[in-house]
Amino acid sequence: MFQPAYLDHNATTPLDPAVLAAMLPWLESQYGNASSRHEYGRRARQAIDEARQQVAAAVNAHPTEVVFTSGGSEANNLFLKGAAAAMKPGVLAVSAVEHPCIIKPAAQLARQGWEVRSLAVDAAGSLNLADYAEALLARPKLISVMTANNETGVIQDIAALANAAKAGGGWFHSDAVQALGKLPLDFRALNAAGVHALTLSAHKAYGPKGAAALVLDKRVELQPLIAGGGHERGLRSGTENVPAIVGFGCAAELAAQRVAELSARLRAMQAKLEAGLAGLGARIFAVEAKRLPNTSYFAFPDIDGETLVGKLDRAGFAVASGAACSSANPEPSHVLRAMGVAPEIARGAVRISLGAGNTETEIEQFINALQATVGRLQGLTAIAV
Amino acid sequence: MFQPAYLDHNATTPLDPAVLAAMLPWLESQYGNASSRHEYGRRARQAIDEARQQVAAAVNAHPTEVVFTSGGSEANNLFLKGAAAAMKPGVLAVSAVEHPCIIKPAAQLARQGWEVRSLAVDAAGSLNLADYAEALLARPKLISVMTANNETGVIQDIAALANAAKAGGGWFHSDAVQALGKLPLDFRALNAAGVHALTLSAHKAYGPKGAAALVLDKRVELQPLIAGGGHERGLRSGTENVPAIVGFGCAAELAAQRVAELSARLRAMQAKLEAGLAGLGARIFAVEAKRLPNTSYFAFPDIDGETLVGKLDRAGFAVASGAACSSANPEPSHVLRAMGVAPEIARGAVRISLGAGNTETEIEQFINALQATVGRLQGLTAIAV
Repeated sequence: MFQPAYLDHNATTPLDPAVLAAMLPWLESQYGNASSRHEYGRRARQAIDEARQQVAAAVNAHPTEVVFTSGGSEANNLFLKGAAAAMKPGVLAVSAVEHPCIIKPAAQLARQGWEVRSLAVDAAGSLNLADYAEALLARPKLISVMTANNETGVIQDIAALANAAKAGGGWFHSDAVQALGKLPLDFRALNAAGVHALTLSAHKAYGPKGAAALVLDKRVELQPLIAGGGHERGLRSGTENVPAIVGFGCAAELAAQRVAELSARLRAMQAKLEAGLAGLGARIFAVEAKRLPNTSYFAFPDIDGETLVGKLDRAGFAVASGAACSSANPEPSHVLRAMGVAPEIARGAVRISLGAGNTETEIEQFINALQATVGRLQGLTAIAV
Repeated sequence: MFQPAYLDHNATTPLDPAVLAAMLPWLESQYGNASSRHEYGRRARQAIDEARQQVAAAVNAHPTEVVFTSGGSEANNLFLKGAAAAMKPGVLAVSAVEHPCIIKPAAQLARQGWEVRSLAVDAAGSLNLADYAEALLARPKLISVMTANNETGVIQDIAALANAAKAGGGWFHSDAVQALGKLPLDFRALNAAGVHALTLSAHKAYGPKGAAALVLDKRVELQPLIAGGGHERGLRSGTENVPAIVGFGCAAELAAQRVAELSARLRAMQAKLEAGLAGLGARIFAVEAKRLPNTSYFAFPDIDGETLVGKLDRAGFAVASGAACSSANPEPSHVLRAMGVAPEIARGAVRISLGAGNTETEIEQFINALQATVGRLQGLTAIAV
């Protein structure tokens, strides 16, 4: 089967072959329920314990701080709604560029009496510090600011933001699903700075879909979203997805081992890609900000992003327009809107997110294909006008 | 590695090799995010669509009635808390023998103003119809009664119960995770009788952990537990676990194809097992009720269930004491308590749940091992007394 060049790693990543190899025994002969008190159950429990240690070690957390969930969206909902359910309603502050799985639960909480403050970003996509300082005056009980943005790749200084919020006494959470494997993550240091919870997801870092974690300061009281048998210290009930959790452990370990080498390699490819994009006249978003080494978000004047993605797909390049997770929704990106990008420019947005399997040759081929496609589309635009 | 005889299929089942084969491409080269608008994404979306059709067909539902979740606990929580969040608090009725993933969310709702009625069962584990009729007079807005009990295997007459509740206008849900593959399930017929939602789970029917479904009458309004990118018609956000969903589709199709043959075969092994148990002097719970063809729940006087499970484990037989999912909790089974079984008897409870891979020879070997073990333990008890 024809396999296009995959340039959409922020949407999801291929499984690392070592991760699949680690998972296979748990899909084949080792099928026990980890709550069962027999040989099959004990083996499954031990595998989960080991995966918990691997995930914890990858982000310098304690294994007892790792709460496994089925995905990053669940972990984000668990933190916001779980913590909110254990308090009286108050102020909740989330950045304007969060993933919908933070923004939508915040909106649900707004209907339950919470006052939701949207934290503004500047034109480069970094949190507006003056606006943040003002929001802190309202003493938010819950704050959520992502470590790195899925669309622009912009990295927020989570430690500094959490530290500034410390005096307010609220809980500070960060969605770090786009950071794992691309940036070093140190929960112990972040926790000392005032970060109380981090969301991680396996499938964004060469691990399987179906496993993720909320890394959680144990002082934070949470009500479970999924109540039942009392799994995960009562915070997330349900039979553990043993193969996926084992794969997550393996992927997290590899991510931590490889992050320095991989991010350097990605950074070099990103530079080559963005030199090519600039040469073709693309506007690269958030280029002034500190960004992930793999993410380039750009637009060409008068070219629709969806159209460009479709043409590139037929040319053999898998890229994204806006965030994959909200692509059922054809509105221009809320991230670009928050950065003040005009809707007619935002509608042109295309995202390249590189990964471990990409090569310099693919970058060159992509730039060539893009040049040809953009040339044709601009020709069509010129004719149409 | 030594593989004990696996007699604990109500806890979880091995993956059918055909299911694993169906999943593998989605763990290897076909890793796209189903929301992505490129070749990888389209293939993943198509695979999910096909799985949705398979699951729907297996229970005679329409594909648009299938909401995929990460597990049965999530689906049960989604129904109860999701429906409750879309209404003003009222009366909620759940049977006393439900799985903790119904009982605990009901308790959470009780703290939010819902009046929770626990529906009594009789000594054989069947719903007490007089108590049920009385509960209906309170016009519960939500009712949940499981199709078949995970511990005793007792089957409730869901169609009749839902029909009796119809005039009340509430939503009737049934946790059918233990029924899929062991009993025929017809959502269209159940829906006509007044059942509005069914929970199914892949890993209880030779499918993977990490995929399940709420089969839902679309008139039921639900608030999502996991809000975000708007997946699953906005009812369950989060990147779809494509391999697990594909596996669920395959497993559901096989379950429907095989249910008649498999349940007959299980029923024959169950008869042989229970003749052996009776011969050894075991008390078999709920023996008077209509039960699943694979489940036998029993106790010996003066023998602790946990101890017996441990001895059988060392003898090479994987069996359960009480429900696997709550086995972190050493209290006697709430199901047996609801049936009026004395705590000293309930503490002896051991569950055998047979599956497609078991053989008559394993049953004979098990009875022999049980005879030897029980003989030794009764000898010890006699000495201790």
